[in-house]
Amino acid sequence: MTGTKWVYSFGDGTAEGRAEMRELLGGKGANLAEMSNIGLPVPPGFTISTEVCTHYYAHDRHYPEDLDGQIAAALAAVEASVGARFGDPVNPLLVSVRSGARASMPGMMDTVLNLGLNDETVEGLATRSGDRRFAFDSYRRFIQMFGDVVLGVDHYHFEELLQEAKDDRDVTLDTELDAAALEELVAAYKAKVREERGEPFPQNPRAQLDAAIGAVFGSWMNQRAITYRRLHDIPAGWGTAVNVQAMVFGNMGQDCATGVAFTRNPSTGDAAFYGEFLVNAQGEDVVAGIRTPQPLTIAGKTASNDDAPAMEEVMPAAFAALMDIRATLEAHYRDMQDIEFTIQQGKLWMLQTRNGKRTAAAAIKIAVDMVHEDLIEKTEAIGRLDPAAIDQLLHPRLDPDAERVVLTRGLPASPGAASGVVAFSADEAEARSKRGEDVILVRIETSPEDIHGMHAARGILTARGGMTSHAAVVARGMGRACVAGAGDLRIDYIKRSLSVAGRQVLEGEEITIDGATGEVMIGRVRTIEPQMTGDFATIMEWADGMRRMAVRANADQPVDARAAMRFGAEGIGLCRTEHMFFEGERIVAMRQMIVAEDEAGRRAALDKIGPMQRGDFKELFEVMEGRPVTIRLLDPPLHEFLPGTDEEIEQVAAAAGVDVAVVRHRAARLHESNPMLGHRGCRLGITYPEIYEMQARAILEAAIDAGRSTGNPVVPEIMIPLVATRAELDLLKTMIDRVAGQVMEEAGETVTYLVGTMIELPRAALRAGDIAQTAEFFSFGTNDLTQTAFGLSRDDAGNFLESYRDQGILEQDPFVSLDRDGVGELVSIAVERGRATRPDLKLGICGEHGGDPASIRFCEEVGLDYVSCSPYRVPIARLAAAQAALATKIERDA
Amino acid sequence: MTGTKWVYSFGDGTAEGRAEMRELLGGKGANLAEMSNIGLPVPPGFTISTEVCTHYYAHDRHYPEDLDGQIAAALAAVEASVGARFGDPVNPLLVSVRSGARASMPGMMDTVLNLGLNDETVEGLATRSGDRRFAFDSYRRFIQMFGDVVLGVDHYHFEELLQEAKDDRDVTLDTELDAAALEELVAAYKAKVREERGEPFPQNPRAQLDAAIGAVFGSWMNQRAITYRRLHDIPAGWGTAVNVQAMVFGNMGQDCATGVAFTRNPSTGDAAFYGEFLVNAQGEDVVAGIRTPQPLTIAGKTASNDDAPAMEEVMPAAFAALMDIRATLEAHYRDMQDIEFTIQQGKLWMLQTRNGKRTAAAAIKIAVDMVHEDLIEKTEAIGRLDPAAIDQLLHPRLDPDAERVVLTRGLPASPGAASGVVAFSADEAEARSKRGEDVILVRIETSPEDIHGMHAARGILTARGGMTSHAAVVARGMGRACVAGAGDLRIDYIKRSLSVAGRQVLEGEEITIDGATGEVMIGRVRTIEPQMTGDFATIMEWADGMRRMAVRANADQPVDARAAMRFGAEGIGLCRTEHMFFEGERIVAMRQMIVAEDEAGRRAALDKIGPMQRGDFKELFEVMEGRPVTIRLLDPPLHEFLPGTDEEIEQVAAAAGVDVAVVRHRAARLHESNPMLGHRGCRLGITYPEIYEMQARAILEAAIDAGRSTGNPVVPEIMIPLVATRAELDLLKTMIDRVAGQVMEEAGETVTYLVGTMIELPRAALRAGDIAQTAEFFSFGTNDLTQTAFGLSRDDAGNFLESYRDQGILEQDPFVSLDRDGVGELVSIAVERGRATRPDLKLGICGEHGGDPASIRFCEEVGLDYVSCSPYRVPIARLAAAQAALATKIERDA
Repeated sequence: MTGTKWVYSFGDGTAEGRAEMRELLGGKGANLAEMSNIGLPVPPGFTISTEVCTHYYAHDRHYPEDLDGQIAAALAAVEASVGARFGDPVNPLLVSVRSGARASMPGMMDTVLNLGLNDETVEGLATRSGDRRFAFDSYRRFIQMFGDVVLGVDHYHFEELLQEAKDDRDVTLDTELDAAALEELVAAYKAKVREERGEPFPQNPRAQLDAAIGAVFGSWMNQRAITYRRLHDIPAGWGTAVNVQAMVFGNMGQDCATGVAFTRNPSTGDAAFYGEFLVNAQGEDVVAGIRTPQPLTIAGKTASNDDAPAMEEVMPAAFAALMDIRATLEAHYRDMQDIEFTIQQGKLWMLQTRNGKRTAAAAIKIAVDMVHEDLIEKTEAIGRLDPAAIDQLLHPRLDPDAERVVLTRGLPASPGAASGVVAFSADEAEARSKRGEDVILVRIETSPEDIHGMHAARGILTARGGMTSHAAVVARGMGRACVAGAGDLRIDYIKRSLSVAGRQVLEGEEITIDGATGEVMIGRVRTIEPQMTGDFATIMEWADGMRRMAVRANADQPVDARAAMRFGAEGIGLCRTEHMFFEGERIVAMRQMIVAEDEAGRRAALDKIGPMQRGDFKELFEVMEGRPVTIRLLDPPLHEFLPGTDEEIEQVAAAAGVDVAVVRHRAARLHESNPMLGHRGCRLGITYPEIYEMQARAILEAAIDAGRSTGNPVVPEIMIPLVATRAELDLLKTMIDRVAGQVMEEAGETVTYLVGTMIELPRAALRAGDIAQTAEFFSFGTNDLTQTAFGLSRDDAGNFLESYRDQGILEQDPFVSLDRDGVGELVSIAVERGRATRPDLKLGICGEHGGDPASIRFCEEVGLDYVSCSPYRVPIARLAAAQAALATKIERDA
Repeated sequence: MTGTKWVYSFGDGTAEGRAEMRELLGGKGANLAEMSNIGLPVPPGFTISTEVCTHYYAHDRHYPEDLDGQIAAALAAVEASVGARFGDPVNPLLVSVRSGARASMPGMMDTVLNLGLNDETVEGLATRSGDRRFAFDSYRRFIQMFGDVVLGVDHYHFEELLQEAKDDRDVTLDTELDAAALEELVAAYKAKVREERGEPFPQNPRAQLDAAIGAVFGSWMNQRAITYRRLHDIPAGWGTAVNVQAMVFGNMGQDCATGVAFTRNPSTGDAAFYGEFLVNAQGEDVVAGIRTPQPLTIAGKTASNDDAPAMEEVMPAAFAALMDIRATLEAHYRDMQDIEFTIQQGKLWMLQTRNGKRTAAAAIKIAVDMVHEDLIEKTEAIGRLDPAAIDQLLHPRLDPDAERVVLTRGLPASPGAASGVVAFSADEAEARSKRGEDVILVRIETSPEDIHGMHAARGILTARGGMTSHAAVVARGMGRACVAGAGDLRIDYIKRSLSVAGRQVLEGEEITIDGATGEVMIGRVRTIEPQMTGDFATIMEWADGMRRMAVRANADQPVDARAAMRFGAEGIGLCRTEHMFFEGERIVAMRQMIVAEDEAGRRAALDKIGPMQRGDFKELFEVMEGRPVTIRLLDPPLHEFLPGTDEEIEQVAAAAGVDVAVVRHRAARLHESNPMLGHRGCRLGITYPEIYEMQARAILEAAIDAGRSTGNPVVPEIMIPLVATRAELDLLKTMIDRVAGQVMEEAGETVTYLVGTMIELPRAALRAGDIAQTAEFFSFGTNDLTQTAFGLSRDDAGNFLESYRDQGILEQDPFVSLDRDGVGELVSIAVERGRATRPDLKLGICGEHGGDPASIRFCEEVGLDYVSCSPYRVPIARLAAAQAALATKIERDA
């Protein structure tokens, strides 16, 4: 490979690389080159490309032959630029060596500073800087860093010697050691290195450099880096670059400083310069926290009530230069930048720039502001927002300034913060809520019977269950805060108390939970309510203009539908009728139906439920004002509704007019080994057609009622769950059509309706062409489709999914982000075959994935018509759908 | 459609149709034509083709215009042939009208005899036959049949009148009614028809004929026929034919007779003419059972100790003619025939011939004999055997002559008959078996812990569970007779008794179960042992020469492997290691491992199990003498092994040296909502690698041991269950390779082994191309693949699958016969993608489908290398694989 360029120089207002060469030069190297190119003051240096790393590993850890010469040439250029020479005893060049991969990579060797120092050059540095202490402190730091990361001499050896030096002199701070002490420490360090390594600390600067470069490349294959790459799907073949750069010193006197800054406020997004600096300090001193950094601007000083003088005051010239650079960088990068700088003897040097991390609120403000500043296009503004981060803005959150006493921590299962009094049962939660109390429902785990209590509560806390447990899924659907699986929690239903490590909270006492962090706190912690106006509204409006897919919400009850409308849902993609059966009197009638031994018994119970269902649907249709509403007929295994306690059994027996023993026997017979794969979904509709008949009638009658009351004609979409064969759908559609005929005749009015199906079983996906002969729409139930494609129960996966992620077998929980390779192929197949049969087939998704940005991107790619998610994720979905449309368009155009 | 031929004549040694025209003429019509063509005496007649039926329904129940003329012409030809005229008062032609579809179709109108009789022609018949009683009996029968099936006058009306006539005359038998009585009865019948229909019984013979033809076509669309077609996948478009044929009478005097015969013995297959006849009788008299039929041959008479004279003796001329016809038919049809004949005044007439139904034993003997007689080719012999029927021959069966007292009936869950003393627990069964008793294990339902008792028992009887319950599946695997789900059975474990409707059987008392019929009998009923020699062995040898796929057995233990070898298995396709853990001391160690809180605890328990596993595998390898053995690593959810009773928990706590409460707590934590989709299969191997390590080590060490002891090198196939992603397999294969390296180093010997996977999840099927990068073989686990593709738990499907089959949603239980459309497509995809990655990928199937002929046919079509099934189904699979190879070859050649 002779002739390949391995080394790229930068500095002095020019560079061989540029920002777009990130793959070759790594993020840091590319940005150093870019800053040089646009004339910013960057200490000169060079980047050894990622191709060297690749070559190194492809050739049994040997470098390309001509690398050595290219490094020598680049080094000579740096010497010429700085006017100092590597290893020169009088005027030595010192350099830093840093790794720099394409993506940020914790676990790799990071930095060696002050490289080039040895027993001779340290004297030159002392003389030239006029500060012997500074020179030996620099040498001491170099040996320590180099010893640790290059030579593999454990860090604690140096820490021990440093401590001994301080003990000997009876001082506590490193800064209290004088030049003589540091000189002795350097000698001790070198002796330790010789002892550990069996050879002296290297004195040849070029040998030091080669060893440091080798250590960076070597660290690419250390265990931590390998694990990190596996977890983040970074190919080993990418390799890392190495940056070698002339040292500048912020710690050479009072005209020196070092600092970090954001070009805008990363917390609020305000277009104000934001950061801090330290006079006479090196970068690591800021991190070490020994001295308190000072504000950059006078405005910043005022805002934070800081007494220390701002840079604007003490170093006005350097500050002015920095403000110019800030403007240059933002105009150039067209995004908020996170920068590092050093001032050496009054001269400003830029050491790093990169796009700055920011809060969701700041991200939105910056994006909107930059559009208004004509820095970026609207599509760019939309494209760079992280939809998942938006979630923070849609729920109340803890006031960051409020004090808190953390009791324990669980999984951050549903975002938002909530305070309230503890209630240990759903009934108690409901009762307290009716009395006007804010309630946190606390359960070991929740079940469908707790729904009314979850609705009544502001937040839910459980001791068991994972991110996809019942509590978590339902809470996310309802937009309630939830902390799940707080394993340290001891809950005693008898004493009505919870405790963690001896600290007890009784029913009626206040706690606060933060569903975004998983924290559980004692007492009430102040929260901030979400705002969906201003910049947020602007972003949503832009996103709506860019997306192709509609966004619907999963909403079971009118209160959910109202939330969905508030968040901008364009319809309901999934109304689960089973949740309607758990409230008040209904559950008794429902149980009566289930334990009935024959059709007559079931019909008697259904006659009680029918009018309630009709009322529910009517209200739902009215809220949605004619927008499409997809209603799924009864789906879950019947035994979920079974009476459990003796009291419940007696209640049902009384309602049904049968003996308690009959109810008990029937309940036992309904037990299933694998209810997820059992007698549920359309199987219920086929074995007990009277249930679906009642539901179809309630839907169609409600549609007519709501159409009359609002003047908005309703076109209900009746959805049959868990279809595996077309024959099931044929049978049930015939039944629905028959009922519809009766209803219309009775009402003297026609109502348009669609009959479709969930595609939630692999067989249904494969047979989609056949099923679409009958189905007028498909809604992908990707929760169940994931369960069946993987053979993986959501409820039970907690036992091993964690281990799977730790070992890198699954990058992501497939219940959170749709598995493109497997489940995704089933969806693609179904889309293709379904549309081949029925070109106007309406296609949507209603699993939890409907609110996940990566999954929404997939839905756009396969051409679904809409996504449906929980009301509180609708804005996320709107943004993600816009991004998906933009990205897919770009791919198509490419 | 003018010009179409709708009507096909036959008789007088010629015919317009032939045997191959079954689709057009139906089975009966085609064979009547064929018999005419080969010169057999067939009463002349004609067949109205199935196209008329199709036309009739395609044109709103109107006939083709030119049909009427074609019927008239065909009828005239019959008149000419017989020398009688339809409706002629002196010499009337009488005809029969019968339906005749392509496939036998219960539920359709069957037969009207004596059509053409009316008040005038009955007198002509009386005069010409010289038997007035005969004439009026014929007329009476005609009105009854025609009234019932054509006019829709309910059968019971005629029965009542007939009973009244007998009561009036104080007689008990129809035959005791004289001519005058029958004449009165005819009048009463006609009056009843007029009363019910509002119009007189039709007197015009042609109108009678048209109405009968219309009734046949009409019955094609009656509810019973529609249901039957749906259940048997017969398209409505096939239609039925109608056969109209001159009547011949076996009841005109002592020189008349009627009979049925098989050209060979349908029970044994012996090449002896076999049948019975009645002098002076009509066909229906044989069925009515009023008179005892006589044997055909002197040999038959001797064999059955019959006193009545044989046809060979009393009608030697007709008998000789019949023997000639027998030879002609067999030579022509090249199969055993089931015939009906009538002798009218000494003249023999053939009314029907068709391939005769026969027992499995007879089928085999006839097929072998016919090859030896040069009647058929070997491929034909193999092709016409029903593999499923062979099952009867592989198990002991009840002596058909033995008396029996049937106690109750359950599902015929695993074939074979078994007698023994009742035992109500696995331990009791084992103890009694060790004492030399034959045992029937009786349980409400079985669980994996009953395995040792099931092994010890001759048969298993359960009160609960379906055809795919644990008891049924395991019993079939072990070749034990099993009657499952005998719902009337009351089992009392405390009193140690079972009872049905008050009849009680105590532990230790004998019962007999017949797994082929589901019958449960009191006491010991004599059984016959299976023979796998002689003709059976010949058939198997021929089949082996014709098949492409290998046949392996699913065998978990040496005793199963020995059975597999006896039945001709060429290897083990599935050795489930979990069954090995339930025996004796092992279950305690296994439980100790499961409840261990950490790896050290698990390893301590595994150290006890390892040597036992190694011993099991060694013996298995030795039995198989170097044939391939696929061993599946631990698969089921751990909680299946959990201790249940207090005693078991104490035992485990003692073995593990922990507190009882710890065991109880851990057991509770292992509970799963959907264990089928839970922490099982390779998920166990990934979370607890020490388990799979132990198993891999045991397998590889055993392979080396067995190779040494037998001189047959063993190439074990290590199978990883429940793989959903390639990463799982990668991880585990790496582990196995590491263990293998250690084992080989320790043994100083290399062992070749394969690592592969079950394809039993939809995702694995789709990702087969990727998985085959690592897997060296695939074994399709179609049980789980069916469960996940359909989202259907085998254990729970009983609640609704029956209803699904009744309503025609599923033609077959997809756990019995592989669902080609859905599960089959997943298999095809996996085969294609797997082979694309690795052309020499070894492919097999090890689900229950591996023993189902239709599924085996599918396996041949997609090109699997082998099927694996329970040892007792190996011969069935060998035959089915041969047939599949033949059929696929024929399709390819076509």
